Amino acid sequence: MSAALLQHPFMSQHAVSESNAQAMIRAMLAFELALADVQQARGAVPEGVSQQLRQVLEAHDFDAEAIAAGIATGGNAAIPFVKQARGALPADIKRYFHQGATSQDVVDSALMLLVKPRLSAVDQLLLRCRAAAIELMRDHEQTVMVGRTLMQQALPITFGVKVAHWAIGLEQARRRLAAVELPVQFGGAVGVHSGWDEQGLAFMDALAERLELDTAVLPWHTDRQPIHALGTAIDAVAGAAEKLALDVALLTQTEIGEVAEPSAPGMGESSSMPHKRNPVRCALIRGAARQVHGQASVLLNAVAQPLERGLGEWHAEWAPLIDSLLLLEGALEQTVVLLEGLEVNPAAMQRNLAVTGGGIMAEPVSRILTPALGVDAAKRISAEAAESARLSGKSYADVLASHPEVLGKVDHQALLQATDPAGYVGTSREQVRRAMEWLMGNAA
Amino acid sequence: MSAALLQHPFMSQHAVSESNAQAMIRAMLAFELALADVQQARGAVPEGVSQQLRQVLEAHDFDAEAIAAGIATGGNAAIPFVKQARGALPADIKRYFHQGATSQDVVDSALMLLVKPRLSAVDQLLLRCRAAAIELMRDHEQTVMVGRTLMQQALPITFGVKVAHWAIGLEQARRRLAAVELPVQFGGAVGVHSGWDEQGLAFMDALAERLELDTAVLPWHTDRQPIHALGTAIDAVAGAAEKLALDVALLTQTEIGEVAEPSAPGMGESSSMPHKRNPVRCALIRGAARQVHGQASVLLNAVAQPLERGLGEWHAEWAPLIDSLLLLEGALEQTVVLLEGLEVNPAAMQRNLAVTGGGIMAEPVSRILTPALGVDAAKRISAEAAESARLSGKSYADVLASHPEVLGKVDHQALLQATDPAGYVGTSREQVRRAMEWLMGNAA
Amino acid sequence: MSAALLQHPFMSQHAVSESNAQAMIRAMLAFELALADVQQARGAVPEGVSQQLRQVLEAHDFDAEAIAAGIATGGNAAIPFVKQARGALPADIKRYFHQGATSQDVVDSALMLLVKPRLSAVDQLLLRCRAAAIELMRDHEQTVMVGRTLMQQALPITFGVKVAHWAIGLEQARRRLAAVELPVQFGGAVGVHSGWDEQGLAFMDALAERLELDTAVLPWHTDRQPIHALGTAIDAVAGAAEKLALDVALLTQTEIGEVAEPSAPGMGESSSMPHKRNPVRCALIRGAARQVHGQASVLLNAVAQPLERGLGEWHAEWAPLIDSLLLLEGALEQTVVLLEGLEVNPAAMQRNLAVTGGGIMAEPVSRILTPALGVDAAKRISAEAAESARLSGKSYADVLASHPEVLGKVDHQALLQATDPAGYVGTSREQVRRAMEWLMGNAA
Amino acid sequence: MSAALLQHPFMSQHAVSESNAQAMIRAMLAFELALADVQQARGAVPEGVSQQLRQVLEAHDFDAEAIAAGIATGGNAAIPFVKQARGALPADIKRYFHQGATSQDVVDSALMLLVKPRLSAVDQLLLRCRAAAIELMRDHEQTVMVGRTLMQQALPITFGVKVAHWAIGLEQARRRLAAVELPVQFGGAVGVHSGWDEQGLAFMDALAERLELDTAVLPWHTDRQPIHALGTAIDAVAGAAEKLALDVALLTQTEIGEVAEPSAPGMGESSSMPHKRNPVRCALIRGAARQVHGQASVLLNAVAQPLERGLGEWHAEWAPLIDSLLLLEGALEQTVVLLEGLEVNPAAMQRNLAVTGGGIMAEPVSRILTPALGVDAAKRISAEAAESARLSGKSYADVLASHPEVLGKVDHQALLQATDPAGYVGTSREQVRRAMEWLMGNAA
Repeated sequence: MSAALLQHPFMSQHAVSESNAQAMIRAMLAFELALADVQQARGAVPEGVSQQLRQVLEAHDFDAEAIAAGIATGGNAAIPFVKQARGALPADIKRYFHQGATSQDVVDSALMLLVKPRLSAVDQLLLRCRAAAIELMRDHEQTVMVGRTLMQQALPITFGVKVAHWAIGLEQARRRLAAVELPVQFGGAVGVHSGWDEQGLAFMDALAERLELDTAVLPWHTDRQPIHALGTAIDAVAGAAEKLALDVALLTQTEIGEVAEPSAPGMGESSSMPHKRNPVRCALIRGAARQVHGQASVLLNAVAQPLERGLGEWHAEWAPLIDSLLLLEGALEQTVVLLEGLEVNPAAMQRNLAVTGGGIMAEPVSRILTPALGVDAAKRISAEAAESARLSGKSYADVLASHPEVLGKVDHQALLQATDPAGYVGTSREQVRRAMEWLMGNAA
Repeated sequence: MSAALLQHPFMSQHAVSESNAQAMIRAMLAFELALADVQQARGAVPEGVSQQLRQVLEAHDFDAEAIAAGIATGGNAAIPFVKQARGALPADIKRYFHQGATSQDVVDSALMLLVKPRLSAVDQLLLRCRAAAIELMRDHEQTVMVGRTLMQQALPITFGVKVAHWAIGLEQARRRLAAVELPVQFGGAVGVHSGWDEQGLAFMDALAERLELDTAVLPWHTDRQPIHALGTAIDAVAGAAEKLALDVALLTQTEIGEVAEPSAPGMGESSSMPHKRNPVRCALIRGAARQVHGQASVLLNAVAQPLERGLGEWHAEWAPLIDSLLLLEGALEQTVVLLEGLEVNPAAMQRNLAVTGGGIMAEPVSRILTPALGVDAAKRISAEAAESARLSGKSYADVLASHPEVLGKVDHQALLQATDPAGYVGTSREQVRRAMEWLMGNAA
Repeated sequence: MSAALLQHPFMSQHAVSESNAQAMIRAMLAFELALADVQQARGAVPEGVSQQLRQVLEAHDFDAEAIAAGIATGGNAAIPFVKQARGALPADIKRYFHQGATSQDVVDSALMLLVKPRLSAVDQLLLRCRAAAIELMRDHEQTVMVGRTLMQQALPITFGVKVAHWAIGLEQARRRLAAVELPVQFGGAVGVHSGWDEQGLAFMDALAERLELDTAVLPWHTDRQPIHALGTAIDAVAGAAEKLALDVALLTQTEIGEVAEPSAPGMGESSSMPHKRNPVRCALIRGAARQVHGQASVLLNAVAQPLERGLGEWHAEWAPLIDSLLLLEGALEQTVVLLEGLEVNPAAMQRNLAVTGGGIMAEPVSRILTPALGVDAAKRISAEAAESARLSGKSYADVLASHPEVLGKVDHQALLQATDPAGYVGTSREQVRRAMEWLMGNAA
Repeated sequence: MSAALLQHPFMSQHAVSESNAQAMIRAMLAFELALADVQQARGAVPEGVSQQLRQVLEAHDFDAEAIAAGIATGGNAAIPFVKQARGALPADIKRYFHQGATSQDVVDSALMLLVKPRLSAVDQLLLRCRAAAIELMRDHEQTVMVGRTLMQQALPITFGVKVAHWAIGLEQARRRLAAVELPVQFGGAVGVHSGWDEQGLAFMDALAERLELDTAVLPWHTDRQPIHALGTAIDAVAGAAEKLALDVALLTQTEIGEVAEPSAPGMGESSSMPHKRNPVRCALIRGAARQVHGQASVLLNAVAQPLERGLGEWHAEWAPLIDSLLLLEGALEQTVVLLEGLEVNPAAMQRNLAVTGGGIMAEPVSRILTPALGVDAAKRISAEAAESARLSGKSYADVLASHPEVLGKVDHQALLQATDPAGYVGTSREQVRRAMEWLMGNAA
């Protein structure tokens, strides 16, 4: 469908191909076979039947299109899948397949199985982001640039500390996502293992272990906290990447030019406008993140599900959950490339530090002037001189030094220091060191 | 991808297949060829070149996968599409292809071309809903049922008037969506037809005519009001269908049983629970509508796009726009089936009218009693008698007639009338007639 | 509450004070008195009673706090309001107050009455925006600036055409909002005017006329299309203002400096950073618009309301509807100030046009060179020369003219023209004229 | 403003009054005084000055209206607050007030201080919910009722296990919210403690300790992960309460009547419809939760904030954050009342178990019949007999026993057992026990 041209560009291609219809079918099958295993181990399935099921069904060529078509009548993928599977089985063991399970058990658990490798992949990408960020922080611990608030030049910072803030955001989100549980779902028709009084919970726990999913306190057929926790944690990572992409896009603006996306053949180039290097990766990250926010809002609104099974609320979760993960993984693939290959332009940073003629240093200058001139005069003169410097192109320190009210009253060396952005970056360097410690001290 | 099992069930299969990658490519091609036509007609392309382009490219077998793969470097489908198209053209006419256009022109206009037949299909479905609703309104103009507020029994209405309210909602939304404009987009690199001072706007207007799209006042590359209007109108229809599905699901509850989804082989049946008929269509409609709301929220948040081209905001619109339409069309296909085949159970409605022993008629009864007994006694007795009737199983009128304070004071016939829900449906019938007039008077 | 410090800054203060609890009470009262009037005119209330109700209740000092406290038990403001009103009335006419009405009739209609003056105010603000935009378009029809796509310099446009695009967006949204209907709501307990078979719809229509609201086809207690249409139209205007604020904020960046918010005492100034002029109005507009999007998403998700009265869905609409209007009006008050007083800096625009050394003119230059040098050389030379110009500070035309491959082959005058951004603004001027016609031709 | 009548009903009144403008002012003051304290302790403020500041300012009567009015020019509450505070201070110590801080430090930290007691209150309410739920689970461990999927009767469960699922949802959300950190914010103008190289981070850490907030790794002025984590955890609790309210509302329906909201004078009563008891608390909870989802979506979309200070994104967070907490606390106050006083009607549950004539037991019956009759006949007969029982009013077991194909082949006692819902509640009881253990084992 058109998604290939409209949505897939934002997604991880690798993840898309690992999450196709066949993967969903394999995940549903894995659930059913694990169920037969644990039931057999507890005597609820005759000895050998579980192996028999596995043998037949792992060799079976499931018809994904037929399953897709069959969804219309039952409302979910498990119903036609189970039907197709049973059709492939010898009559005498059909009944041991899907025994005690309901469609929701199959679909929810299969989704968790699809999600699991995606979370690993996302975590790996985030660890690469972290490593690349640490590299940048190290390289640019001393690289002075302008800090901007409300997108206006404010005071100096370092590029290192900016990267540290990105890295902290990404790592907080990574840890949050890594801590999310992916519980197995198994409860039968109404979530109480009807007909399996003694064994229902034991099956559920054993299934979790066998499928390497998290155990659930109880079945969560209409307690959708696990989905909410997962969906919002995905969104948090998307937000952290989006912040970084927004900053890079802003710093890449032609007039600012402090960073650039890593160049790659054809990447972001415009054949008709040779001067242009479009921040295409940033656009893709931001495009993906915005879609993730929409998907997350579906999940927020679907937590309250009626009685023992959602009537549309549950169904509404599937695509947003998987799509938001695929979008996130795509966004992170771009983020890794950005961070690993970001072109940093300290000269442009220096140029921009000078754009206000020193105006961004008016605050420390004013502090230096105050003892000699009083607060009011200090403020006035520091501002006026910055403006003169900007217009005349002279250095701020020189303009100040030659100002009639300052002349002879303030040491030129002090003025030179006070007007040097590199001397006024606060805790930038200390923050970088602290961030590194925090980032690395908790590396899993 | 897994969408086939997780999202497509909610979508119109017909629409999905008509909106695939090839359809998007055909739409982009239609835009480019129409552009060449209108440029040739105005002397900006040499005579005959437009036909040449058409001949070559309509015969060209575009490689959708290569285009999809090429998106990564440019960030949208138009760039690799144009490249592939130019590759297929003789060198001397390459330059007349995509002349004066930018990627956004191609993608936005192609999206409008994809949207157009979907809006027609949606309109047709809504007209079928309207016709089916009118039929139901006619059949059930006199079918009395309980009206419920905050999901509690309140006072009688007719099933006809309930359908009328559904129909009004759907038709309001239909008219809103039908009024939405699908403007052509054509502005060149920065939206001002650079290099085509004299002819840019003429090209734009002629393109609209040729593509049978709406004309635009100006290019709308970062004036996304058209997308907002479209996306929210789609959402409005989804909401109207969702309301109907919610009502049907509630009235289908086992204890209420006043309506049922049309039966179809295997539809909503449970092999293990033969008494159960799941409102699967309602679940699919509600599941689709909730996803549409999420997509719409992406569009709301993407209206503000920077300067002359979005940096992710634009990109984020594509999938939500198309997906929400495909979801809507799917939801409406289900809604048509629901309305055309809805099973209505007037006997169950009668049964439920009696559930409170007449309590729902306490208000009109109290009015009848007031002249003889005063307001306070009338209210007390009407309530008490309803409760007695409920517990004893006797008719409300009989209990009232034999009540010591009522006996001989109020005419039995009057009591019979006052306790008859059919006599207390207010403007239900008049509303049905009014709705019909409004629905049909404006049939396009 | 803390809203005064956290949310009100984004809202219109004027609108907040006109939409307080007393205003809501007055609106509910207006509904009830109009109902008595129309019922009296049709014989359903004894002659003179309506005037009596008006006399007593317009003089009554409603206790807003008691009403607020009373909401907890009934779940909406109408219940305690009606109780308090009846308490103030002589016993013999109590029953004619709120006759045939239900709480939802009162609340929905009162909300429409609160909304109406706000929509007028919003419309007035948008007309002022339009007038101010037209002024700017006129003043800057010839002001050349850089057009930027993906926030990168692309090709020249005029500032006039940029304003035209803002104006078109705002005006489209204005017309959409102006076309939204504010229907009266009157249906009684279950929406069918129970007990008023003959007159229910006549009351409803007469009420609409008397309250100067729109007529409704039918009561819309759970057909929430009117709320969806209103809420999304509000959001559309917010989006149009947000786009403008985003552009202004980007163009105000220190390194770009092409526009500035109108200066006002203390506005956006930083005492410690004298060089800084924060785009505070843009921040307030963007902050408001984002909140409006959230409110709108509540409305999207609340359209489907069960049976004859929402169970929370209805209740969830109230605050988002009113708050989003107050936020919008606040945002537009800022937008008016922005547009009426925007400081435009054509010198900065010129400076930025030169930042790439002419690179943004490489496309037209390449066209000029092509006949003499061939496509490939033309592209190469146009790009190289722009880079040389940027590095050397020489003019692009001079660098080109003295380029060994160009020397003597291309007319210097032609080069001067081709490198002049003012000569390459496409349909900028024509778009301004077209926009003006459209904006003014439809002035209400 | 109208919020008092439109939004406050959903909020905790207690919380609203504890979070008013004065509370925000006190919180900002607490931040500033703590800052002076920690700076004095580290020699950055002269000895005694901190106490002097505290003395003057704690006695100062801040003019909230003036502060509110002052927000317009600076864009946040801190600017006019600081101005007003400095105005109250002796000239010689003015400069030690707000030293090294920026507006965002004040506002963000003050918000955290406002949030903190609200989180405690929310936690207390959730602990009360937990205790009440445990009580209900105990009382109804054996209370059999129908489980419903897609709102259709499915198979029996117990009311105890239903409450257990609610309790697990609420408790998962409680633990998630309790784990959210509320970090202090302190970074100065651009987040690097400009001018305080040695001490900036020490100030930040000491501030956290003094204000009893969490420490931050780094200032988080544009790393909004803390806000995202908080806002989505609030939303998760709202969703858990919303689920419970949805179930209660559904079970309260007139035809179902299995539970009822606790009665209270006037609560949910309808003067004109005495049979009606509206689930007003459920409506308020659902109304609140839906608004919270909208607020959360604002926060999701605001995580990416540009460079060193949001330009509207930050501003957009304030009201959604506080409002969603006040709405949540209001919803939980209602939830506590619901759970502590819920009226449970086991007789109605029994009645509804019989509504299908035993159809809900067709599955276990079919299992019993299978050995004697084969699978197909067993399924057919179990379904037919249920339908006969429903129509005739006889017991399912009797109808089965007298069925010609069953007669004499299956033990009557076995049929009695198989048709008894109480014998088919699966792990309901075990789940209750397991839930209790989990709920209590982790009681903080």
